Amino acid sequence: MTKQALLLVSHGSRRSQSNTEVIELTEKIRPLTEGRFEIVRAAFLELADPLIPQGIEQCIKDGASSVMVLPYFLAAGRHVAEDIPEIVEQAQRDYPDINIQVIRHIGAAGFMPEFLAQIALSEKG
Amino acid sequence: MTKQALLLVSHGSRRSQSNTEVIELTEKIRPLTEGRFEIVRAAFLELADPLIPQGIEQCIKDGASSVMVLPYFLAAGRHVAEDIPEIVEQAQRDYPDINIQVIRHIGAAGFMPEFLAQIALSEKG
Repeated sequence: MTKQALLLVSHGSRRSQSNTEVIELTEKIRPLTEGRFEIVRAAFLELADPLIPQGIEQCIKDGASSVMVLPYFLAAGRHVAEDIPEIVEQAQRDYPDINIQVIRHIGAAGFMPEFLAQIALSEKG
Repeated sequence: MTKQALLLVSHGSRRSQSNTEVIELTEKIRPLTEGRFEIVRAAFLELADPLIPQGIEQCIKDGASSVMVLPYFLAAGRHVAEDIPEIVEQAQRDYPDINIQVIRHIGAAGFMPEFLAQIALSEKG
């Protein structure tokens, strides 16, 4: 049996509340993925646990045969363009049998304008 | 005639490409607001023009009677909790006849889990 994992990667903060919010977010995402992602976890680039390699490892321990890394970043700065891909490439070398891919950061998602419009429309003016 | 404005506020970056992306985003949001927001603009907390006070001023010059400020931030750090509200309060004092409100940063939006699930599901695994 193959399981797909989604790993939400955020920067990580010195404020533990920020990190907790990201972890709570993954719990809300899981039931919305129509059964496609049985495993949904969070990991952090720095400042918080688990770091990305450990997050990938946890997914694999949970039985994942593929891991989709979703960068929870708005801008395509160095973290998105270089740091995350480099860390994921290393993990891919460590786990050659697992399909690990990084998708675009959320700021580049085609759904973003619609998402922002929804937020604004849902507020009382 | 009253016009509602939506002002998307992001941090601002030294990379002009990042700032341009935010401005382009506002152009995509406008047609999705079902006519409720006739004015959709971007402004920046720092490092790029227009800054928030100038962004609010532009909305008012365009004829806005209300301005909804949407913080394009994922985490509720100091910028979201203190800096943006303080700047907006000052603008509200400068323009007492205009209804200016700050809504929650996008990281706290109830739609966020659904948005992230949509992104993941739209990718080929």
